[in-house]
Amino acid sequence: MDAGTAASHVEHVHGKAGWHFLQLPGPTNIPDRIRLAMDRPAIDHRGPESAQLALGLFEDMKKIFKTDGPVLIFPSSGTGAWEAAIVNTLSPGDKVLMFDTGHFSKVWILMANNFGLDVEVQANDWRRGPDPDEIEARLAEDKEHKIKAVLAVHNETANGVCARIPAIRKAIDNAKHPALLLVDTISSLGSIDFRMDEWGVDVAIGGSQKGMMLPPGISFNAISKKALAAAKTAKFPKCYWDWDWMMADNASGFFPYTPAVLHMFGLRESIDMLMEEGLDNVFARHSRMGEATRRAVTAWGLEVVCANPEEYSNSVTAVFTPEGFDADAMRLQILERFNMALGSGLARFKGRVFRIGHMGACNEIMLSGALGGVQMGLEMAGVPIDKSGAKAAFDYLASVK
Amino acid sequence: MDAGTAASHVEHVHGKAGWHFLQLPGPTNIPDRIRLAMDRPAIDHRGPESAQLALGLFEDMKKIFKTDGPVLIFPSSGTGAWEAAIVNTLSPGDKVLMFDTGHFSKVWILMANNFGLDVEVQANDWRRGPDPDEIEARLAEDKEHKIKAVLAVHNETANGVCARIPAIRKAIDNAKHPALLLVDTISSLGSIDFRMDEWGVDVAIGGSQKGMMLPPGISFNAISKKALAAAKTAKFPKCYWDWDWMMADNASGFFPYTPAVLHMFGLRESIDMLMEEGLDNVFARHSRMGEATRRAVTAWGLEVVCANPEEYSNSVTAVFTPEGFDADAMRLQILERFNMALGSGLARFKGRVFRIGHMGACNEIMLSGALGGVQMGLEMAGVPIDKSGAKAAFDYLASVK
Amino acid sequence: MDAGTAASHVEHVHGKAGWHFLQLPGPTNIPDRIRLAMDRPAIDHRGPESAQLALGLFEDMKKIFKTDGPVLIFPSSGTGAWEAAIVNTLSPGDKVLMFDTGHFSKVWILMANNFGLDVEVQANDWRRGPDPDEIEARLAEDKEHKIKAVLAVHNETANGVCARIPAIRKAIDNAKHPALLLVDTISSLGSIDFRMDEWGVDVAIGGSQKGMMLPPGISFNAISKKALAAAKTAKFPKCYWDWDWMMADNASGFFPYTPAVLHMFGLRESIDMLMEEGLDNVFARHSRMGEATRRAVTAWGLEVVCANPEEYSNSVTAVFTPEGFDADAMRLQILERFNMALGSGLARFKGRVFRIGHMGACNEIMLSGALGGVQMGLEMAGVPIDKSGAKAAFDYLASVK
Amino acid sequence: MDAGTAASHVEHVHGKAGWHFLQLPGPTNIPDRIRLAMDRPAIDHRGPESAQLALGLFEDMKKIFKTDGPVLIFPSSGTGAWEAAIVNTLSPGDKVLMFDTGHFSKVWILMANNFGLDVEVQANDWRRGPDPDEIEARLAEDKEHKIKAVLAVHNETANGVCARIPAIRKAIDNAKHPALLLVDTISSLGSIDFRMDEWGVDVAIGGSQKGMMLPPGISFNAISKKALAAAKTAKFPKCYWDWDWMMADNASGFFPYTPAVLHMFGLRESIDMLMEEGLDNVFARHSRMGEATRRAVTAWGLEVVCANPEEYSNSVTAVFTPEGFDADAMRLQILERFNMALGSGLARFKGRVFRIGHMGACNEIMLSGALGGVQMGLEMAGVPIDKSGAKAAFDYLASVK
Repeated sequence: MDAGTAASHVEHVHGKAGWHFLQLPGPTNIPDRIRLAMDRPAIDHRGPESAQLALGLFEDMKKIFKTDGPVLIFPSSGTGAWEAAIVNTLSPGDKVLMFDTGHFSKVWILMANNFGLDVEVQANDWRRGPDPDEIEARLAEDKEHKIKAVLAVHNETANGVCARIPAIRKAIDNAKHPALLLVDTISSLGSIDFRMDEWGVDVAIGGSQKGMMLPPGISFNAISKKALAAAKTAKFPKCYWDWDWMMADNASGFFPYTPAVLHMFGLRESIDMLMEEGLDNVFARHSRMGEATRRAVTAWGLEVVCANPEEYSNSVTAVFTPEGFDADAMRLQILERFNMALGSGLARFKGRVFRIGHMGACNEIMLSGALGGVQMGLEMAGVPIDKSGAKAAFDYLASVK
Repeated sequence: MDAGTAASHVEHVHGKAGWHFLQLPGPTNIPDRIRLAMDRPAIDHRGPESAQLALGLFEDMKKIFKTDGPVLIFPSSGTGAWEAAIVNTLSPGDKVLMFDTGHFSKVWILMANNFGLDVEVQANDWRRGPDPDEIEARLAEDKEHKIKAVLAVHNETANGVCARIPAIRKAIDNAKHPALLLVDTISSLGSIDFRMDEWGVDVAIGGSQKGMMLPPGISFNAISKKALAAAKTAKFPKCYWDWDWMMADNASGFFPYTPAVLHMFGLRESIDMLMEEGLDNVFARHSRMGEATRRAVTAWGLEVVCANPEEYSNSVTAVFTPEGFDADAMRLQILERFNMALGSGLARFKGRVFRIGHMGACNEIMLSGALGGVQMGLEMAGVPIDKSGAKAAFDYLASVK
Repeated sequence: MDAGTAASHVEHVHGKAGWHFLQLPGPTNIPDRIRLAMDRPAIDHRGPESAQLALGLFEDMKKIFKTDGPVLIFPSSGTGAWEAAIVNTLSPGDKVLMFDTGHFSKVWILMANNFGLDVEVQANDWRRGPDPDEIEARLAEDKEHKIKAVLAVHNETANGVCARIPAIRKAIDNAKHPALLLVDTISSLGSIDFRMDEWGVDVAIGGSQKGMMLPPGISFNAISKKALAAAKTAKFPKCYWDWDWMMADNASGFFPYTPAVLHMFGLRESIDMLMEEGLDNVFARHSRMGEATRRAVTAWGLEVVCANPEEYSNSVTAVFTPEGFDADAMRLQILERFNMALGSGLARFKGRVFRIGHMGACNEIMLSGALGGVQMGLEMAGVPIDKSGAKAAFDYLASVK
Repeated sequence: MDAGTAASHVEHVHGKAGWHFLQLPGPTNIPDRIRLAMDRPAIDHRGPESAQLALGLFEDMKKIFKTDGPVLIFPSSGTGAWEAAIVNTLSPGDKVLMFDTGHFSKVWILMANNFGLDVEVQANDWRRGPDPDEIEARLAEDKEHKIKAVLAVHNETANGVCARIPAIRKAIDNAKHPALLLVDTISSLGSIDFRMDEWGVDVAIGGSQKGMMLPPGISFNAISKKALAAAKTAKFPKCYWDWDWMMADNASGFFPYTPAVLHMFGLRESIDMLMEEGLDNVFARHSRMGEATRRAVTAWGLEVVCANPEEYSNSVTAVFTPEGFDADAMRLQILERFNMALGSGLARFKGRVFRIGHMGACNEIMLSGALGGVQMGLEMAGVPIDKSGAKAAFDYLASVK
């Protein structure tokens, strides 16, 4: 879209009343509590208040990742945390196993290639996650343990598929393979259960603007003992992402460079909110959102992109539009008429898929509005649907706690 | 509700995710633009910035009331503006005509009695507004013009009835009666068309927390020439509400006492927002909200309180629950389960009526969520409904611009 | 100042960097904690969260006023609370004793006259408070107890004089006179010690935008048993200010009309801040601010308006400019050049006096900046001063805790 | 300082009244306008509003850097922008010339070493900037042009020295040397004049939390044609910092990964504020702040760290405490007693130096307060000073426009 179009669109939206519904799979709605926690003066990041804040965050982020190992906080987007995971554990030319199972998975592969890793790719139709059996088979073949790491995306934001990380762990173990397991939890952390230590993940990569409900701007590396050991011999040149440099200062609550201090105040509030609600309640709520959305989609007579019910994502649902209906045109119509943003289909799904984000600070009434809006948008776009979709979601939501 | 219950309830809400839906007929949702406009330091209310701000507001509030006369801004709730209208235009013992047509109309009558006015009341079943024919008949009888003023509520917030002010004007004119016409526009101003000068209203009373989208705290008196003349001989003792005292300082942008200066910044933003959208578009939007809500109610098989389709309110819809179902229990269930607040039935409607506010910064998706929530709440409460209600609203909203 | 001047001035300020120093005797700087507490959605003022909040405020405001009696919160400026005190305790024609000791004292007298009270006035040179001996003498004369109330301003904001309320109480007692004692604490509450019950005050009137650090918009009446009794027979017509109507609903945490709910959230934070610091520490801090300011003024060779050291105000210092120097011109120069607002001389002091507010959220460094700015402003205006004034304040502030 | 100390300190500060004075050389005070611009919901960073915003920022940041070349915005601290400058223009083993002239200069050298560059260092006593003559001499020797780049810090935040970049440019030109010139403008950008194109800088590195007045979290690379050409052959592996990847998406207003979108809204406001005031006025204001501070320091009888008056920094002043007085103890006393944060002496200056930040949204009254506070702190710490220091600053500030 060119800037001219953008300008006129923004003016149009400006005169619109009421809330903007940001039903994206990230960035998500920032709750007032977090906005207020961040609406404050900066502080001296070398002073005691900052140190106390940081030490608390380091400790509590372990509970979010369900790990005993260190969690590092980078001032960067999640893509930076991908890079940090690579440059701290691997060396140029290392062989790694990755999965072409969706758009973001593919971008991570691109990054690995840029860093000169020897990337072996297992691909599929982007309607399911990595296949544990295929992984086990490949690792079993790798008798010399050339493969140094398996890099998987937990929740593929681009198609609403939630990979079975425990099964992947089991595949690695069955193959008795020593490869590290690096997992992107960017769009699952704080929305869908993730258990770093129990599942044997070596590096977990997170971001701020999804289930953590913050604006984009900070990212995470949670690190296992095995990953720390691997870092001793990793040969990529690095400084900004250097775990050692970061951890040396983190020990006393400081950072080797200026942290994104307002995001840290926001993160404090985010963690508090998740803990007050209770992580299990948070996951159950996302499960209700996901199920309600899928029931609406099915009742409309449309097809969910994720083809494997075991891998349904509870934070985002990607939906095919029927042949001949442009998903992007419909999304734009909904944005202009109803002030609601939906996610687009990415790469091979462009124009054929729209995505309903239901992660983070989302509740039943917000989702009811969103599904009502999608139903109206589908109707306005002339997509032939059964208009009982939203009702199916309401029936479900009224029936479960 | 006692404080103990309150406490536990608040804690329960605290762990809830997502937006609170405040579907009340006021206070209404405060848009971010207004919240931000008010989130600022105080300024010297005797300094030039304050004067410039105030003069702009005085001028632009005339456009909101559609009048050429002065508009005064009091630091008070709307109830204060009722009082200001009375004490500036009337004298102890004056005869006035008022209407027992709903809870707030009745409170205004109570105030008039407290001030020692001789209040003559026309009452009805609270399902319709004042009857212009009855008014004309009564005024025609009053040959000696003992009745000094007719006091009517434009939009009765407690039952969702919008009085026909132009017809009431016509009734007074037909009777060739000189009575002043005082009109409460608290829950219509900025939501439903109101034309002070064209309709011959003498004092219009407004508040901040409904269609003006501000927090409660300021109120308005818009004043006709005839009302200004009446004020010359009005005998109630007064100071805080004294129009003369206020107008003397207002001329240069100042006030005789400290104004609610942050509300004034908010009001600036509120007026700008209404003007950007265009008042006619604002009224059309409220009309869509009202119609969609009534279609949902009807499709559910429930009854709207307002019995006269000519008097449907577009800012609030009051709905009867069937015999045997406690509206307040349902409202509480919706608040606790879904974090949405609905208005209660007041006085004679207590427990039998719930109210859906759709005024101010409300749009299609917000209303879709609200109606979805009401449908779920009705179902959860066991109220026998046809579950096609929300769908009827969606069908309508998708079909109109 | 006309609107044209205002406009150009505001634009000038717009391009200024850094903080605006609002060194007024109200409105005062609103601390971030209070701004954030008020930057939130409205809530249902008929719901449990509002009730819980209000009940806590009613209780804790007693600690601020140091009383066991009820404290009422009106959506109004402090002037409204003056009116509430009058109309609830007195009747038309009642004789009262008041004091022409400063601009605001005089406006209150104006109000009493407007209400038809028979106001007897004791006047002075506006450089000291009411004279307890004179009061005692007058009351002793009033054998028939015609005087129903003594109305005094605790801290006269317009000239920085803090009346000796305990001595006035003693004067009334010495005269064995039953008159009510009504005291305006608007610019002392939360800054200078005030002890309602210990001092035998019958109605204490407070506002939000001074020591309470809130934006203007709410006001208080704290009420003694004797005042409650007087209210039973008071004959002014009233409704908005009616203590009975208010107290009936307050009992369960509610209000007879919509309260200024965001101010209530702000008040919660304000009280918490005062209690965290400790009221005695708050008063000691204001004492340091007052003393430092007076030392600077004296060292500059200028004269403090308050002529009685026992009545120095710790929340505002009024200062005479020497003959021939226009205080307002200097204030404007300081505003334009340094973005700092000082208070003006009012009424008979216009142009001859400027006022330095040091109340509310003010600390040593803020005051240091303000005094530096005044020193620079005096120099720029050519006022002959000894430029050791700010230094005298710094020396003092460095030497006390 | 351990966490235990931190905790008790924070609680102590919590009960303090009034503003926190953050007189650090970054992060600096965030103006309300910027805080409000960032206090908003996230938006779809793949949507039209985001694109329009970004395109405007790309264009306007050129004016801030005074360049025609592209300016990239990274979600990272300034340290990340250092890394981006290195990995995009250089290759492992490249020889570079750097300067050990202060703490931050030294950390950049550390980074260059980490990346395997062959770093040649010119060192001094940390009281002056890089020596242009020495640079010219060294480059003239380098007949084979082994030195690929000269990396200099414009304003060394740790000691208040502002390097003479135009003279360094001239030195390179005199030596007819093709080395790239990479300049860190982190603590000068938006405070002290910097002219990328006129001065022939190839990569300028900026940050958000100093003169740009934002919270930390974004950083900048401004890039010359020569640097873009160098990037074609630079061999460091990279992805997150990859200029090509970034520029490809930037062309249409997008980013290859999620940008720190709220910082972008803040940056829009920051640029607008700088432009409204006028960059030349901004620089003149900082010049006044710097000169006033130095006059105070000299009048106190203390020594400014910067030994070369041509290199005085106008954004931060570092000051030696006399032998035997611990600068950090004094800073802590000022923080606890007066709620003002000063910068510490770093590395070799630890305990011997304190730093007064006067960059960003700082004005005369704020600085007056800060200097008053320093004077009081020096006195409280028993440092023998002439107490006319603050007065010297006031005299100067009153005398200049």
